[in-house]
Amino acid sequence: MNAISKHPVFANELRADGSFVPQSNLFTVPFGYGPGEHRPEAGRYRLLWMKACPYAHRAVIVRKLLGLDKVISLGTASHFRTEYGWEFSLDEGGVDPVLGIRYIKEIYDRADPHYKGRPTVPIVVDIITGQGANSDYFRLTNYLETVWSDFHMEGAPDLYPEESRGDIDALNDVIFRDVNSGVYKAGFAHSQEAYERAYDTLFARLDELERHLQTNRYLFGNRLTDSDVRLYTTLARFDAAYYSVFNTNRNRLIDFPNLWGYARDLYQTPGFGDTTDFAAIRNSYHASPHLRGFAGNPSGIYPKGPDDRLWNTPHGREKLSKG
Amino acid sequence: MNAISKHPVFANELRADGSFVPQSNLFTVPFGYGPGEHRPEAGRYRLLWMKACPYAHRAVIVRKLLGLDKVISLGTASHFRTEYGWEFSLDEGGVDPVLGIRYIKEIYDRADPHYKGRPTVPIVVDIITGQGANSDYFRLTNYLETVWSDFHMEGAPDLYPEESRGDIDALNDVIFRDVNSGVYKAGFAHSQEAYERAYDTLFARLDELERHLQTNRYLFGNRLTDSDVRLYTTLARFDAAYYSVFNTNRNRLIDFPNLWGYARDLYQTPGFGDTTDFAAIRNSYHASPHLRGFAGNPSGIYPKGPDDRLWNTPHGREKLSKG
Repeated sequence: MNAISKHPVFANELRADGSFVPQSNLFTVPFGYGPGEHRPEAGRYRLLWMKACPYAHRAVIVRKLLGLDKVISLGTASHFRTEYGWEFSLDEGGVDPVLGIRYIKEIYDRADPHYKGRPTVPIVVDIITGQGANSDYFRLTNYLETVWSDFHMEGAPDLYPEESRGDIDALNDVIFRDVNSGVYKAGFAHSQEAYERAYDTLFARLDELERHLQTNRYLFGNRLTDSDVRLYTTLARFDAAYYSVFNTNRNRLIDFPNLWGYARDLYQTPGFGDTTDFAAIRNSYHASPHLRGFAGNPSGIYPKGPDDRLWNTPHGREKLSKG
Repeated sequence: MNAISKHPVFANELRADGSFVPQSNLFTVPFGYGPGEHRPEAGRYRLLWMKACPYAHRAVIVRKLLGLDKVISLGTASHFRTEYGWEFSLDEGGVDPVLGIRYIKEIYDRADPHYKGRPTVPIVVDIITGQGANSDYFRLTNYLETVWSDFHMEGAPDLYPEESRGDIDALNDVIFRDVNSGVYKAGFAHSQEAYERAYDTLFARLDELERHLQTNRYLFGNRLTDSDVRLYTTLARFDAAYYSVFNTNRNRLIDFPNLWGYARDLYQTPGFGDTTDFAAIRNSYHASPHLRGFAGNPSGIYPKGPDDRLWNTPHGREKLSKG
């Protein structure tokens, strides 16, 4: 119990029963054309991410798949957390070249000088006002897929087809609860019971998805959807980070024949692999002061494995596409 | 560098270049029938171990394989390290029923009240005098195999045949340097260079052993030897502990078809599997205050995986035995 109240980053999000319940978002005003909403506009917004974050990564993938990289710019913070949160130390002078900020925290401070939560990614910033526009990690890809449709490139896939939104939303909820957030529930658990509950739920769900993907190329048959992006970003981090750092180690991704083929299929699709940086993922999770039992990585050693090159091996899943 | 001098357990064994060099032994007088040597005698000695230690485990396996469990008794300390080192907290009243000690440290204190090293297992204690007899983890199995031969059971295997000792010793040196100690060199390294050197050496050696075991049931053909025991104790800890805790994660044991079949073959041989406690191994390595970057396990979570039951699956290696 002591460890909970002393946690340097997540003290407010750890419950007395040892479970982890993430904070709510600060920037929730939706994108849209209604009054008070953030109106889509080319060149007006900047998406901020750091490469290890699965929730930020999904927005970066969808932005690329839809060709929105031409109209929404991208700022990349370092994947090593600092005392003030995510920092633009990869940029010249340690400052984001468009927003002129050093830390993502500055966007939060502008909105609320008394903000006590964690500054998070993804966050979309209004370049003109310098204010945070939206940090709704759960809905952000859906905004890009719908409200931003006027800016989609020629031939962009419809990742969120109107007739399937109910089904996609339902599956997204399950994927979020048991998989995306499931690995964090296991890794951040502060009781053996909370950890084992998250572990059992996670692997039961992965077993179910494994069966489903035996005969389906994607989660919704032949069609790539928003749900695939959501599942992918957790799968891409599984063997490189979660297996060891979060103790989600019943088995690795590469031990599930269908999930592993599916993950490689996506990885080898433009928008996925080219936005996946395994070294950043591996190093970030193994180093962050809030991980590995809150101990960080005092020895400063970063693992060499596993072998990322396996992601480029043939997956043979084209044969599942009947279209 | 700071982390080195501050290390709670291994400060004296960490070099300035970040590498780990284990201390020397305190009890080095050999077993034998010469003057001043420890004379083999039924019921006179007690072997002390804790289940997670690969060096203690090898002595326990050989003791069992040779039937020396009838003449040398066994004391089992808890696999959780305490402030005073290994403790007999698994025994009633927290005291070893034969030696009447609470900590293995007491044997070291009797020999040298100013002893500054780590009290280690395995250690063989003379029950009559209560003094430590031998803690030579490198040679101990060889003593059991040779000097103790009068006490071997009917039909005991010759694990250290006279005509092959030179070859066995040479292979044991390699296995010790690159594999047994290799995983610790990786896990205890305090520089990225030292870690990567140990990692590369370890996996290069495992690759070589993998090729060798393609056509050899055991390391020396059809014959089970002391070398197999030495390799086994590291393999049995690989996926359960080293892969995650020591970052030896290029791949797991179960990704090497021959090494994995070989390890299961041994596991399913009496003396190996029945002395292998995966839960103790997993929990000890994930909890010890000297591991995981010296952070221990403040959250108190122990991993559920990987699945130990895989060790009982068929290995099919009998076909390699031509004898």
